[in-house]
Amino acid sequence: MSFLREISPLVKNTFLSERDVLSICAAQIAAEIQQDERKNYNEVLDLSSGDLHRGGIKSITFVRQVLAACFYPALLEDDSLPLDVKQRADGLLRQCDGGSVGSYTDSCGIVKIKQCVSKFITRRDGGVPSSPDNIFITSGSQMLMLKLLVQSGGSCRTGVLIPVPTYATFTQALEDQGAAIIPYHLCEEQGWTLQVEELRRALHAGRRTCNPVALYICNPGNPTGIIQSRKSIEEVIRFAAEERLFLLADEVYQSCVYGEDTEFESYKKVLSEMGSTIASTVELASFNSASKGFMGECGLRGGYVELVNLDPAVKEYTRTLFSTRSSPPVGGQIALDLMTDPPKPGDPSFLTFSEVEVFGEIPGISCQPLKAGFFVFPCLHLPLRAIKWAKKKQMEPDMLYCLHLLEETGLHVRPGCEFGQRKDSYHFRFDTMEDALQRLKTFHKQFMKEFS
Amino acid sequence: MSFLREISPLVKNTFLSERDVLSICAAQIAAEIQQDERKNYNEVLDLSSGDLHRGGIKSITFVRQVLAACFYPALLEDDSLPLDVKQRADGLLRQCDGGSVGSYTDSCGIVKIKQCVSKFITRRDGGVPSSPDNIFITSGSQMLMLKLLVQSGGSCRTGVLIPVPTYATFTQALEDQGAAIIPYHLCEEQGWTLQVEELRRALHAGRRTCNPVALYICNPGNPTGIIQSRKSIEEVIRFAAEERLFLLADEVYQSCVYGEDTEFESYKKVLSEMGSTIASTVELASFNSASKGFMGECGLRGGYVELVNLDPAVKEYTRTLFSTRSSPPVGGQIALDLMTDPPKPGDPSFLTFSEVEVFGEIPGISCQPLKAGFFVFPCLHLPLRAIKWAKKKQMEPDMLYCLHLLEETGLHVRPGCEFGQRKDSYHFRFDTMEDALQRLKTFHKQFMKEFS
Ligand SMILES: Cc1ncc(COP(=O)(O)O)c(C=O)c1O
Ligand SMILES: Cc1ncc(COP(=O)(O)O)c(C=O)c1O
Repeated sequence: MSFLREISPLVKNTFLSERDVLSICAAQIAAEIQQDERKNYNEVLDLSSGDLHRGGIKSITFVRQVLAACFYPALLEDDSLPLDVKQRADGLLRQCDGGSVGSYTDSCGIVKIKQCVSKFITRRDGGVPSSPDNIFITSGSQMLMLKLLVQSGGSCRTGVLIPVPTYATFTQALEDQGAAIIPYHLCEEQGWTLQVEELRRALHAGRRTCNPVALYICNPGNPTGIIQSRKSIEEVIRFAAEERLFLLADEVYQSCVYGEDTEFESYKKVLSEMGSTIASTVELASFNSASKGFMGECGLRGGYVELVNLDPAVKEYTRTLFSTRSSPPVGGQIALDLMTDPPKPGDPSFLTFSEVEVFGEIPGISCQPLKAGFFVFPCLHLPLRAIKWAKKKQMEPDMLYCLHLLEETGLHVRPGCEFGQRKDSYHFRFDTMEDALQRLKTFHKQFMKEFS
Repeated sequence: MSFLREISPLVKNTFLSERDVLSICAAQIAAEIQQDERKNYNEVLDLSSGDLHRGGIKSITFVRQVLAACFYPALLEDDSLPLDVKQRADGLLRQCDGGSVGSYTDSCGIVKIKQCVSKFITRRDGGVPSSPDNIFITSGSQMLMLKLLVQSGGSCRTGVLIPVPTYATFTQALEDQGAAIIPYHLCEEQGWTLQVEELRRALHAGRRTCNPVALYICNPGNPTGIIQSRKSIEEVIRFAAEERLFLLADEVYQSCVYGEDTEFESYKKVLSEMGSTIASTVELASFNSASKGFMGECGLRGGYVELVNLDPAVKEYTRTLFSTRSSPPVGGQIALDLMTDPPKPGDPSFLTFSEVEVFGEIPGISCQPLKAGFFVFPCLHLPLRAIKWAKKKQMEPDMLYCLHLLEETGLHVRPGCEFGQRKDSYHFRFDTMEDALQRLKTFHKQFMKEFS
């Protein structure tokens, strides 16, 4: 274990998070592999960011062909590209000023693409109307919405309810904006479900120190891999209505849903069916991204937010906030167009999708089944000796596990302490790739033996 | 004048800036042209954003070919693409995780591209060393740097010295972060030069209301079209050293320099040659972007900032700030690579550049010569009647001029009031395209006659 000795001072360093430390180690191992200094595996498998392409999964040909033709329109004359690719690229270029993807666009996004997103939402929600006017295309981050919320909080510090465990980037962004984080715990024993009682407890606790204005939900869940039932969504909406909370629905995994009886229903759709008082008053922002779903185009930076029930003045203000930024990247905008209006059956580029493997069983690990999203969040039942050893090294026990896993197998995953978890429980976030699963199984048995 | 009647309430509306109003009018005219309702010109010429491609200027084939091949690597097998294009694309793809532009990258940018930027800076500055470690690739905006400054300002409000006239987006971004703007005036009579006496006056005025920590300079200037002399840069640096100000050098127009005796020298280079005390202490952030220069790729969103003389702890904190954001868009990063390492003489794709026209003379308009950048900022000597008429309409006189210009000729330019100007002086920002110049000349004569 070449670097485990040196690592704990790094972890204590305020500048380096667990994430940084693991990344540095992963890079070091990769360099060692290149110099033939490692024998037991021949590549680091990076499962740390939920990045399909990094994990080696292929991009969708249609998407890449359209992008190439948009960037280099001479390809529109090329016989090797399918007709629907050329038509789509040609149509998109007509929407760009000067016919070029090199132009700035409206800072809320290209109008035609917002229309495309809006039609997609209407189809997704079985006809619930959506207006392009409520769609704001972003570079994949939700920063501006947060800014809006944080600014509208008045004199007391703005609070936002955030699940534990959660997608950490969002929490960091909020803290960055000066917001107070109010944690609510998801119930692991009941499949990481969201309990309104727990929301209420968290809200009341939060009210003692800040001004809670919003509730963030991630559905399908990252890192939990679960999907909320309709009943649960209704409860959350009713709670938000009673407590006058703004709902932030992170629905970026909406098209990753597995199994017969699991179906994604958007907060917007459920809200629209809850009777006119609630349906017309609860404020909602719903996020989606080209980084996830069947696209997996993280590098292009394309996302959008749909605003529901916002006061017209606030919406106008949002537009003003956006207009002080420059355009979202055009490549990302194109990706959104293709994601929300993919080729149809009969089109030359009609897509087929492959199924996703489900997580197996390993002693010392218990795991809620993967229903949706990219990830599961298995619970580690670690031997006491491992826990003690980690504490001695001033390290979280699941961080220790992840470091060993990386060192021994080249699997780069992220420890539960980064996402949040109940005290004295340990987890890691895992991606259900077959190769990764094999490496994990072998390692885990050995680790448990070593520390028991 | 179909919409001039309705426009003044819009201008007064707090939600709509001059910029918005002109854009709305431009869109309306474009729609009318499509329905054949306009006769005297057949397109709106958008000079409002300094966007080469929107203005109809062609993108660089090499750049677009490399991008296309990166997005759709099957093109690497295509015989129609030049060899250097394929080699470059192949090399870039190797730098992307999983060999795909669809992967997230390091949040400060791809390491190899940072090295490329760093080498470019060293060449540009005649050997002054630059480290990739000080380069942060951004999506073309400088938001994060501002955040850093604003947060480091202590309890009193952070102040930033900003020129008048200036590139307005930057000012808005600063205000957005909660900073106080301290205006200093550029001297139009002396070719929009920056006078240290005026800086000093502004700083002392600023100290009464906030805590000035930084000085923003735009060189070459937008909208002024000037370039600072070496002597002027030295004076500014000395001033910053005395007053302990952080220098924000916006040098995005560094490669747009015209005429025999004009040469761009970077703040970093001049700083490095000012004796070791100053050279090693004055803190500097220098910005550059693929949106400007010979690339003109605004839609891709690629920029970078180089940090000079930053305290290591602050630099580390900057890295942490960046790491809470996701990657800059990969397309923009690729554009930076190509901008900082373009094809060389002898390469199949070696580029040739065309020259830029210089602004002519028109009675009632006086204009400092265009030395650098994209724009000039001509002064309007408006008839009293026009000024009175505008005031009656509750509109800035140069806004009135721009609205008429748009209506009569389809030229969409931006009024001086958006950039800042001395009281009772009127300007507009202009782009030196031949077609635009012709339209302007015809209109201007008529406007002066109408209002005199
Ligand atoms: C729950 C969740 N929301 C949002 C995002 C943001 O993705 P992006 O910024 O690439 O659109 C991610 C990425 O992993 C995520 O897991
Ligand atoms: C002076 C100046 N700085 C910075 C920018 C930012 O350009 P971008 O955000 O496209 O990199 C511009 C764009 O017009 C500019 O004029």
